[in-house]
Amino acid sequence: MAIKKLGKQTIKFLNPPSIISTASIVGPKEGEGPLKDYFDKIIQDDLNGMNTWEQSESKLQTDTIQEALNKINLKEDDIEYIFGGDLLNQIIATGFAARNTNIPFFGLYGACSVMSESLSLGAMAIDGGFADKVICIASSHFSTAERQFRFPLELGNQRPLTSQWTVTGAGVSVLSSNGNGPYITHVTTGRIVDKGIIDANNMGAAMAPAATDTITAHFKESGFSPSDYDYIVTGDLATIGSDILIDMCKKEGLNISDNHTDCGILIFDNEKQDTHSGGSGCACSGVVFNGYMYDLLKQKKINRILLVATGAMHSPTSANQGESIPCIAHAVTISNSLDKEE
Amino acid sequence: MAIKKLGKQTIKFLNPPSIISTASIVGPKEGEGPLKDYFDKIIQDDLNGMNTWEQSESKLQTDTIQEALNKINLKEDDIEYIFGGDLLNQIIATGFAARNTNIPFFGLYGACSVMSESLSLGAMAIDGGFADKVICIASSHFSTAERQFRFPLELGNQRPLTSQWTVTGAGVSVLSSNGNGPYITHVTTGRIVDKGIIDANNMGAAMAPAATDTITAHFKESGFSPSDYDYIVTGDLATIGSDILIDMCKKEGLNISDNHTDCGILIFDNEKQDTHSGGSGCACSGVVFNGYMYDLLKQKKINRILLVATGAMHSPTSANQGESIPCIAHAVTISNSLDKEE
Repeated sequence: MAIKKLGKQTIKFLNPPSIISTASIVGPKEGEGPLKDYFDKIIQDDLNGMNTWEQSESKLQTDTIQEALNKINLKEDDIEYIFGGDLLNQIIATGFAARNTNIPFFGLYGACSVMSESLSLGAMAIDGGFADKVICIASSHFSTAERQFRFPLELGNQRPLTSQWTVTGAGVSVLSSNGNGPYITHVTTGRIVDKGIIDANNMGAAMAPAATDTITAHFKESGFSPSDYDYIVTGDLATIGSDILIDMCKKEGLNISDNHTDCGILIFDNEKQDTHSGGSGCACSGVVFNGYMYDLLKQKKINRILLVATGAMHSPTSANQGESIPCIAHAVTISNSLDKEE
Repeated sequence: MAIKKLGKQTIKFLNPPSIISTASIVGPKEGEGPLKDYFDKIIQDDLNGMNTWEQSESKLQTDTIQEALNKINLKEDDIEYIFGGDLLNQIIATGFAARNTNIPFFGLYGACSVMSESLSLGAMAIDGGFADKVICIASSHFSTAERQFRFPLELGNQRPLTSQWTVTGAGVSVLSSNGNGPYITHVTTGRIVDKGIIDANNMGAAMAPAATDTITAHFKESGFSPSDYDYIVTGDLATIGSDILIDMCKKEGLNISDNHTDCGILIFDNEKQDTHSGGSGCACSGVVFNGYMYDLLKQKKINRILLVATGAMHSPTSANQGESIPCIAHAVTISNSLDKEE
């Protein structure tokens, strides 16, 4: 047991699971962004052929699962667990998508950290010997998120410049005990960090301290240094949060400025697409990892990334009650090579 | 790996984790019910000294964690993960409780199935070698749930006879790789089952098919028969759902009528306490297991139970959109003896 546990928050897998397939489907706006060529499918309108935005989000998950399985000729029956979640109250996008399968299901809520939370638990299930193949999934939808967390879309509310644009999409990873990589080699699990930010239109600033906490723990405990990573990829800090993260890490004696990038910065062209600080949502890291980053890893253009999806664990109720925003970040090492593990 | 996997949904632990401590704190109404002597603490009013019901629910979790640790002289620092959730949008009761700790946190959403979902994942983390000690937690609160899922309490709405009463409380289990039991020996993970029920005031009927699916899978895959269990304990089917469960199992050739009980039936005296069909909520199985059942196991009054917490994965949004109710049930075998494992 001592071998697997590298520190208070970090574990190392003895038999690192492979990510044998991924898929990503996105909305029209994401399909006009800089990463458009990396997504499997771009839906033509937000409703995605359904009656409601919530059904649309759920269908994104269903179709993305199918896409990821089709790529490697697997069937639902080959999958032993789904680990997944989304931003909606009672995670209905995921629950209704899981209803369309016969796969045992663990529902997660980690706000926008779900992609790395699901990869963490999915990898633990495989390395622990409980499964051969699992699905890890996360989704979000601009229109379901806006009306739940902020204002009715019909109001046409002006968005402050610190705000971020919730990504419409779903991202899926299929993990297996057998495969040729990229492998999930390490997991650093986040703690709740809350520095007292109460501005729900400045999620990046709220989440940056949680990302700092997890990233500094990862480098203390794993034996890696930032240069071991091609990218340290945060989930959705976007431009404002990313600057804060780099500064906060520097104060902790950790320079990640050469290697850091953020899914919320990568997914949109903020100037042209009017997305202010950048992208956000569970699907932000979900589609950027499963679309873009996975492709770079498979093509051997990069060797190793630290995926650090970040979540703001507040709700409209807690915000209305004057509470600040508790945040979390989960980090997962995804690597083509198994040679430099400690 | 083949040893651990007994079937599509069931795993058996090679090194079954022990439940080394539990705690349960409940609200005033639960403190007047038949199990009142088994709870660690009964709060005197629903607000629990806080300003809002949501804060009150979160404080129930914080205090219950402390109570469970105090009983065995452990500190927060001894715990490696919290696995937990609740019913609230964005699981704020759990997120804010986790904020009060420095413990790495996996947020779960399984509606009222959270107690057995958290025990499942917590036990997998320990048996898999990723942790020595973890906390599994679930909470609910009548007043936070009513206003979120149904009507403002101030409306004094009449409740139909099929309705159930959300339990106010929090239940915690501390799992360890070392201990003298009771042990978590098997886990049968649920799939989403939806038989088309749309009546959000008849949760027991909606959830009974999911419980049937998981329980029949458990007995097919584990090698156990119902008589191996002192109790097959469902979470919150209450009176109506329990009758349906027993009938549905009978149709599958499984007679559980001699051994079945339900936390929603046990926690209230429906006649005297005007709770209609019985109790519900994440805390229903949370406090009945961690209060009552754990005591029976520790006192060796019983030897083995199958805890099957049940969840309805809908939301007010999905209900308003005319969707039926997708449900799930997760089963966990908790046993004093390790002698009859297959």
